[in-house]
Amino acid sequence: MPSVSNKGLSMPQSPIRKLVPFAENAKKRGINVIHLNIGQPDIKTPQQALDAVKNNNLSVLEYSRTEGSEEFRTKIAKYYEKYDIRVSATDLIVTTGGSEALSFAMNTIADTNDEIIIPEPFYANYNGFATACGVTVVPVVSKLEDNFALPPIEEFEKLITPRTKAILICNPGNPTGYLYSKEEIEKLAALVKKHNIFLVADEVYREFTYDDKTHTSILKEEGLEEHAIVIDSVSKRYSMCGARIGYLVSKNKDFIATAMKFAQARLSPPTYAQIASEAALETPDSYFADVKTEYVARRNILIAELEKIEGIKIAKPQGAFYCIAELPIKDADHFAQWLLEEFNMDNETVMVAPAAGFYATEGLGKNQIRIAYVLDQKSLKRAVRILKEALKSYKG
Amino acid sequence: MPSVSNKGLSMPQSPIRKLVPFAENAKKRGINVIHLNIGQPDIKTPQQALDAVKNNNLSVLEYSRTEGSEEFRTKIAKYYEKYDIRVSATDLIVTTGGSEALSFAMNTIADTNDEIIIPEPFYANYNGFATACGVTVVPVVSKLEDNFALPPIEEFEKLITPRTKAILICNPGNPTGYLYSKEEIEKLAALVKKHNIFLVADEVYREFTYDDKTHTSILKEEGLEEHAIVIDSVSKRYSMCGARIGYLVSKNKDFIATAMKFAQARLSPPTYAQIASEAALETPDSYFADVKTEYVARRNILIAELEKIEGIKIAKPQGAFYCIAELPIKDADHFAQWLLEEFNMDNETVMVAPAAGFYATEGLGKNQIRIAYVLDQKSLKRAVRILKEALKSYKG
Repeated sequence: MPSVSNKGLSMPQSPIRKLVPFAENAKKRGINVIHLNIGQPDIKTPQQALDAVKNNNLSVLEYSRTEGSEEFRTKIAKYYEKYDIRVSATDLIVTTGGSEALSFAMNTIADTNDEIIIPEPFYANYNGFATACGVTVVPVVSKLEDNFALPPIEEFEKLITPRTKAILICNPGNPTGYLYSKEEIEKLAALVKKHNIFLVADEVYREFTYDDKTHTSILKEEGLEEHAIVIDSVSKRYSMCGARIGYLVSKNKDFIATAMKFAQARLSPPTYAQIASEAALETPDSYFADVKTEYVARRNILIAELEKIEGIKIAKPQGAFYCIAELPIKDADHFAQWLLEEFNMDNETVMVAPAAGFYATEGLGKNQIRIAYVLDQKSLKRAVRILKEALKSYKG
Repeated sequence: MPSVSNKGLSMPQSPIRKLVPFAENAKKRGINVIHLNIGQPDIKTPQQALDAVKNNNLSVLEYSRTEGSEEFRTKIAKYYEKYDIRVSATDLIVTTGGSEALSFAMNTIADTNDEIIIPEPFYANYNGFATACGVTVVPVVSKLEDNFALPPIEEFEKLITPRTKAILICNPGNPTGYLYSKEEIEKLAALVKKHNIFLVADEVYREFTYDDKTHTSILKEEGLEEHAIVIDSVSKRYSMCGARIGYLVSKNKDFIATAMKFAQARLSPPTYAQIASEAALETPDSYFADVKTEYVARRNILIAELEKIEGIKIAKPQGAFYCIAELPIKDADHFAQWLLEEFNMDNETVMVAPAAGFYATEGLGKNQIRIAYVLDQKSLKRAVRILKEALKSYKG
């Protein structure tokens, strides 16, 4: 039997994936599983996006342009104007989800065994794309005690080698919920300029910022034009994860021209999803105001309830819809499985994402979990109560 | 300014891409450009596929399952039964187009600098995916004089090294239109078994076989189960290239489990497109009968008209909707550009795909072009007449 590649063998699995069979078994036993583990929002997709697809008049479902239609890209550029970000349609490639934007970005800037520095904990799939592209992830630790703020810039600088091609951040962060300040972005900008490398920012949660804090896009940094690459997506913004539409944005023309070659190989992003996404760009600001109000309420309830648990430590999120909590246990992997296999409270239990999978450094995050607050407030409250009771009975 | 990767620099560009600006200029000058260069069929997408999307009731456009829903995959397995191919839903991963299936396949079976043998000329994007995955394409020449039949099996065997992970074929072929016989498939099957490597078959044109010839899927070869990987897609079959839905099919469980890790990193294939594709699977056989009749008529007209051109050599296609023609010129790249820049007949000209881009061996195919017969019969006839006149005035 022919064997699979080493690359395939070393592809990381999602930190949640191995828990899925246990969740399915729990459901079979009649247990209601509350999912704190996934970033699939329950928020309704904007009606105009849904309607645009229902009212489409296509008779031949054709390829779109490789980079997305000019109208669509022009509208995306206009969306950025709202945030005082000046990009034009030619600075953009429409991709199949933020995922594809990331994979194009890595392939465009890094060769096999080149390095990309990422503050950890980070979105687990960064590891997957890096492995697929043959790129080495070099982690720099950010700490729960600091709310997962940017690690000291010297920590980054220490890690820069001739193979370093970029620093990659997620802002606001999945899984940390941390929102980088303007000062932090400026420090990173100075560093990448000094070392002539790229700064890649995954800004898909741009709108999800709380407590009157505002988001700082790397696209607004003066003098950073040739270094800045933004990964963007409609998935979370308009609660349309299933569209699979993202964008790659950069003012570096060599970068865009080269990324286009990767884009051409896969022909085009999905047509229906582009129809929905183009319409979604017309979503009124009131939609976001409502969504934000809802997420702030959810976050506040989540944090308030979590704080009632003895021995817990929480990084208070200021953006996105994730929160990392350190539990008074040793092994969150084991605890998460135990929750599904052996615990229930009135026939309910919770599924959480063990946080070790968000760290590249072996041994870190073992007693941490990531909670996605994408559920209604009542369910969130009940979920934390279950977590609290579970921690009491858990023997570890 | 930070520079792009060597991988990015060596990414091949589509053989058509550089002609696009010349086509756009011609249009600006009022010239009607007949496109013989692209595989975008004009055939109507099956109504039930279009309707399923128009009638969808989603209110949250959620991620689908990474591998596609169980219902969808079960229906796909049932589709294969029609062709006496026995696969189950778990042997399948739904992908974002056949493109993604190819890229997952390459990453799953080959590491950086591993080799995949492909008969040339071949679909140009194979080169793109190989470059992105760090895989080396090793071409084996098939010849126009032989209608692009399978090269002698010894030619393959000569090229096998310890780094060879697979042989990749496209059946029926893009750009050749060649349909491999059962005997040819058996020879390849014996070879990959002998050398314990994979056989990857791109069978996206499975239904497009003419002259009462039938398609031989590698999934039907007994004893090949652990070696056979099929790339499939709804794009051409149901004239829905813009859906971006394909499948990866294999009975090799290690292969599927490993490919799933690459699939998980990108979360899920597009949701709307899966709704359309699932409905498309119910397309009645009469649809294909009509489509086939139309393509046979187009092919016959194309070939009959081309044969009237002095000095032309044609490989008669028995499948797909492409044809390679050798022209009495030296440089098809130059000719194709000249057609757009300097020639017109009654304000019309044609755009063709120079075939050199479908060869990996430098220097091959320089006087060949690929013609896609995805246009109505009248346009095809007119296009060939233009080509004939153009060849008379062309000075090379």
